[in-house]
Amino acid sequence: MPEFLNLLPPADALSIWLAALPSEPRVQAESCPTEEALHRILASDIHAPESLPPFARTTVDGFALRAADTFGATPGLPAYLTITGEILMGSGTELEIRTGQAALIHTGGMIPCGADAVIMLEDTQPARQAELEILKPAAVGQNILAEGEDVEAGQIVLERGMPIRAQEIGGLMALGFEQIDVARRPRVGILSTGDELVPPGRMLAPGQVRDVNSYTLAALVSMAGGLVSRRELLPDSCDQLQSALRRAFSEDDLVVVTAGSSVSDRDITAAVIDELGQPGVLVHGIQIKPGKPTILAVADGKPIIGLPGNPVSAFIIAGLFIPPILARMLGVKLSTITPVCRASLAVNIASTSGREDFVPVRLRYEETGWIAEPVYGRSNLIYTLVRADGMIRIPPHATGLAQGSTVEVQLYDPTHTVLRI
Amino acid sequence: MPEFLNLLPPADALSIWLAALPSEPRVQAESCPTEEALHRILASDIHAPESLPPFARTTVDGFALRAADTFGATPGLPAYLTITGEILMGSGTELEIRTGQAALIHTGGMIPCGADAVIMLEDTQPARQAELEILKPAAVGQNILAEGEDVEAGQIVLERGMPIRAQEIGGLMALGFEQIDVARRPRVGILSTGDELVPPGRMLAPGQVRDVNSYTLAALVSMAGGLVSRRELLPDSCDQLQSALRRAFSEDDLVVVTAGSSVSDRDITAAVIDELGQPGVLVHGIQIKPGKPTILAVADGKPIIGLPGNPVSAFIIAGLFIPPILARMLGVKLSTITPVCRASLAVNIASTSGREDFVPVRLRYEETGWIAEPVYGRSNLIYTLVRADGMIRIPPHATGLAQGSTVEVQLYDPTHTVLRI
Repeated sequence: MPEFLNLLPPADALSIWLAALPSEPRVQAESCPTEEALHRILASDIHAPESLPPFARTTVDGFALRAADTFGATPGLPAYLTITGEILMGSGTELEIRTGQAALIHTGGMIPCGADAVIMLEDTQPARQAELEILKPAAVGQNILAEGEDVEAGQIVLERGMPIRAQEIGGLMALGFEQIDVARRPRVGILSTGDELVPPGRMLAPGQVRDVNSYTLAALVSMAGGLVSRRELLPDSCDQLQSALRRAFSEDDLVVVTAGSSVSDRDITAAVIDELGQPGVLVHGIQIKPGKPTILAVADGKPIIGLPGNPVSAFIIAGLFIPPILARMLGVKLSTITPVCRASLAVNIASTSGREDFVPVRLRYEETGWIAEPVYGRSNLIYTLVRADGMIRIPPHATGLAQGSTVEVQLYDPTHTVLRI
Repeated sequence: MPEFLNLLPPADALSIWLAALPSEPRVQAESCPTEEALHRILASDIHAPESLPPFARTTVDGFALRAADTFGATPGLPAYLTITGEILMGSGTELEIRTGQAALIHTGGMIPCGADAVIMLEDTQPARQAELEILKPAAVGQNILAEGEDVEAGQIVLERGMPIRAQEIGGLMALGFEQIDVARRPRVGILSTGDELVPPGRMLAPGQVRDVNSYTLAALVSMAGGLVSRRELLPDSCDQLQSALRRAFSEDDLVVVTAGSSVSDRDITAAVIDELGQPGVLVHGIQIKPGKPTILAVADGKPIIGLPGNPVSAFIIAGLFIPPILARMLGVKLSTITPVCRASLAVNIASTSGREDFVPVRLRYEETGWIAEPVYGRSNLIYTLVRADGMIRIPPHATGLAQGSTVEVQLYDPTHTVLRI
C-alpha cells in the first residue's frame, strides 16, 4: 500500500487508476428504445442499412427538368418547357422528364426519372396553359440532394462508445433504428461513514449532523452515467465498514466510500479497501487542495474510491475522478471536453506551489465581461458549493493568481448554471 | 400577422416572443423528493429552519482548550494541560473545559463548553498520564467552525427559480428538506407535418422518409426541462393540422409545429397558428441562417413555435428558442450562461452581411489547441449534426470569418461531447 505522504499530482493519480483497470469495459450492453437513449453510450457500431436520403430529393419548391433545356435562358429570352405533371409528396412517381418537359415539385419531393436539376419557382413564370417560361439557366444537380448524400448504405454512421445526443437519436430514427444497444449503467455503491451522521429526515441530537455526501455524490454519479445501487450510512466501525464494503464490492461495479475525516478513520478505510483484492490501494494522498486524503484502488478489476468526509472536498474530488472512471467503464473511448467560461479574476488568490488548488468561484457579469469571485468558506461548508458556479484550477507551479488575470472557470453543471446578468 | 419579408434579428424575435407572455409563470408547483430533484427548478424560496453547522465544530483532529492557556507556548517551553476526556462523535458532551484543561476531539466533533480553540494533534505531545504538552500557542477560534458559519437560521438559502444541481440537493438535505416544491414540467406538444413522413419503424415506400424532427425536438425539450406530452405526425392537410393544433393548444403549455418546408405549407401553418388566439403570430421570418421561416406566436398567454421542416434548421432554431421560453415558463428568473470552447477556425467562412449565420463545426485537438472545422452539408441532412460538436455564430455585421481566427464554439450538449484528442 503506498505511503500517504508520497503525494501524486491529480493527473498522474488518475492515470495510475485507469491503467489498473481491464482494457475492455466490463459492463455489458443492454437494449434500449432509441427515444429513451438520450445520454446513454452506444455499445455497438451502427451501420446504415440503407442510404440517406433514400432517393434523390429537391431542396426547393420549383420545377424538375433537364438542365440542358435551360441553357442560355434569360428573362428577356426565356426557355419554354411543357409542364407534364406534379410530383406529389410521399409517393413515387411514374413521370419521366424528357427533353422540353418539366414537372412541378415541392421541397423534399422525389426527383423524377430523366430530370437532372430543379429550378426555383421564382426563376420561372407561367406562360400559356401547361407551358412554363424559364428565366435563368439551371446547372446539372442544382437544388438536388443526391441519394446517399448524407449517408451511404453500409457505412458506419455511429461508433461504439459514443454518447447519444439529440441529433444521434434523430440520425438513428432516420435509418429506422427504434431500438439500440447501449452500455448498461455501471452500478455504483455509495458508503458514508461517521458516528455523527444521521439521515436527512431525522431531527438532530447534539453533536449530530445530517448526511450530505451520499446525496451530492448520487447526483454526480447519475450525471456521469452511473446508477446508484445502494447508499449506506455507517458508524465509525471497522467491522461494519468491512462487511458493508465487501457486500458493495461483490455486487457493484464501482464503490465510493466517504470516510470520516479524522486521521484514524482515513487509515482504517485505506486498510479495509486494500484487503478487497489485487492490486489494492494504488494511490493514497493526492497533491491537491481540497481533497488530499483521497484513496484510489482497484481490486480484481473493480475500481474503489475513498473520498474525504467533508462535503466540499468529496464533491470536488468526485467531480474530477468519477466521470472519467465511469466513462471508461461505459466504453467511452474518446475524451470529454471541458467547456469553460473565461472570466477576469476579482481578487488575488494565493496558493502553495507544488500543489493543484481548486477554488470555487461565483460569476457575475459586468460591462467588461465575466468576473470570477472566489467563494471562500472552509471545505466543511456545503453552502460554499451552493454559492459557487464553478471552480478555477491553480496549476502546481503557480504560487497564486493575480487580480484581473484571465481564468477559465470550469462550470460545475454547465447546462444548469444560471446567473444574474 | 407580420409580413414574412419583414425579417427580425434572432435576439429581437426572442424578446418580442417573451414579452408577449404573462409575466408570472403559468405552470404550477409540485412536490418532489429532494433526491429526485436534480435539474428541476425550485418553486419557492427555502428558508433555513436551523443553523449550519448546528453547533460549533472542529475542523481538525486535536485538543479542545482555552486559547489563553497556550499563550507563549513553544517546543522548548511548552504549556501543560490536563486531559479531562474525549469528545465522542455524534453525541453531545457534558464536559466543560476549564482553565488548564483540554479534551481530545476528532474532526467534526462538537466543541465543548468553555473551549475557544482547538490545537492540532501534531502541535501537542503526550506528557505524563492525562497530561499534555502544548508546543505552540492557539488563537481564539482556531480550527473551529462557528455555529451558523455556513447558514444562519431563518436565512433564505435557495431562491425560487433556481435550478437544482448536485450541491443544492446536498444543501437541502443538510437542512432536513427531504421533499421540496419544484416547478411542474411544462407539457410540450410536438406536431410534424408532411405527406412524405412516416414513423421510424416503417419500411419506406418510394418518396417517403422517416420522421426525425419529432425525436430530436423531444430530446431538446426534455433537456430544457419540458415534458413531451404528445407527438403527432400529420399529412399536409390544413384541416388536420388545424384540429391537431387546437387539441394540443388546449392541453399543452407549449406547442411546437414543424411544418413542411414548401412555401405553401409554411403559409398554411402561420395562418392556422394565427387563428388560435390573441395576439397570434408575432414573428414570421427571422434574419438567420438556417431557419429563416420560423414562426413565433402567443395565443391567450400560451406560446407556439413553428419550425422549418428540415432537420438541421429545426434543431438549430429549437436550440435557440425553446430553452429560453421553457426557462421563462418554469420561472427561471436568471440568465443561462453559454459555456464555450475557444478554437481556431480551420478555413475561411463566407457569410451574408445583415444576417446571423450558425455554422455547425467539428472540433479536433492539435498541439496549438482546438481547431474548429465547419461541417458542411445542406440543412436537410441530419448527419451534418451528428458529425458536429457545436456551432459558431457569425454576427450579422460580419461578412465572414477568416481562417485562423479565434471562434467560440457553442457545444450542442456540453456535458455529453467527447472528442478524439
